[in-house]
Amino acid sequence: MERLYLEDLHVGQKLVSGEREMTAETIKAFAGEFDPQPFHTDEAAAKDSFFGGLAASGWHTMGVTMRLLVDGGLPMAGGLIGAGGEISWPRPTRPGDVLHVVSVIEKIVPSRSRPERGMITVRSETLNQRGEVVQVLVSRMLAFRRS
Amino acid sequence: MERLYLEDLHVGQKLVSGEREMTAETIKAFAGEFDPQPFHTDEAAAKDSFFGGLAASGWHTMGVTMRLLVDGGLPMAGGLIGAGGEISWPRPTRPGDVLHVVSVIEKIVPSRSRPERGMITVRSETLNQRGEVVQVLVSRMLAFRRS
Repeated sequence: MERLYLEDLHVGQKLVSGEREMTAETIKAFAGEFDPQPFHTDEAAAKDSFFGGLAASGWHTMGVTMRLLVDGGLPMAGGLIGAGGEISWPRPTRPGDVLHVVSVIEKIVPSRSRPERGMITVRSETLNQRGEVVQVLVSRMLAFRRS
Repeated sequence: MERLYLEDLHVGQKLVSGEREMTAETIKAFAGEFDPQPFHTDEAAAKDSFFGGLAASGWHTMGVTMRLLVDGGLPMAGGLIGAGGEISWPRPTRPGDVLHVVSVIEKIVPSRSRPERGMITVRSETLNQRGEVVQVLVSRMLAFRRS
């Protein structure tokens, strides 16, 4: 996997990840540990809930998004080191959904005090198999120059 | 656990969660699944990295924060249903850190079209055992009225 340095990036650059399926089993396992609410852990209870059926925790969708980015969706040299970001979930992630992530470089700011690095802003949309956006993450992360 | 409805909330209201310890084992297990980067999975490799030692994935800190909120840190009636938010990590979470979450209600906006609900903005700071903030999450979530 070719790694991207600061000088390899340009605004508008688009990167596409591989895919990952969300199963009822993994949705319930994640929720059992980090977000144990009935609409994430129990099909029957979920039916009568706000979601109208089992839905993944938004943080599970985020975790899988991160995994897809680490596995080649955003191959930053030096790793994916985020300072923070904004996240939203336009619609739920459901069992059987197959997710992938499309990232676009939105901003590149070389550091004035540390010439070997910069800060980039990346918009990563997580889409299901119908091309519907289930999560939007706009993150600020480090980028390193070739030394 | 007493559940909070829209009419129980006021701006400035503060809620405090229980605690959860982050161990090297859970840090590496989470990272192995969702964020497999050396500084999250391997003590020796982490020493020579940007983090200077093993650090939890920010999304792991977020997952544990969510668990602390669900377990009583933010006991919203109808559940914790987030529309999105902003997240940042002022410093890393390390093995042995004991986290808790302090949440403050920042904004309450009753829905005009759906009188039974509203949208609230909550600032949740995740702190370690020294009172240092390791994560700031400002989230927008649903609140329901008593029916």
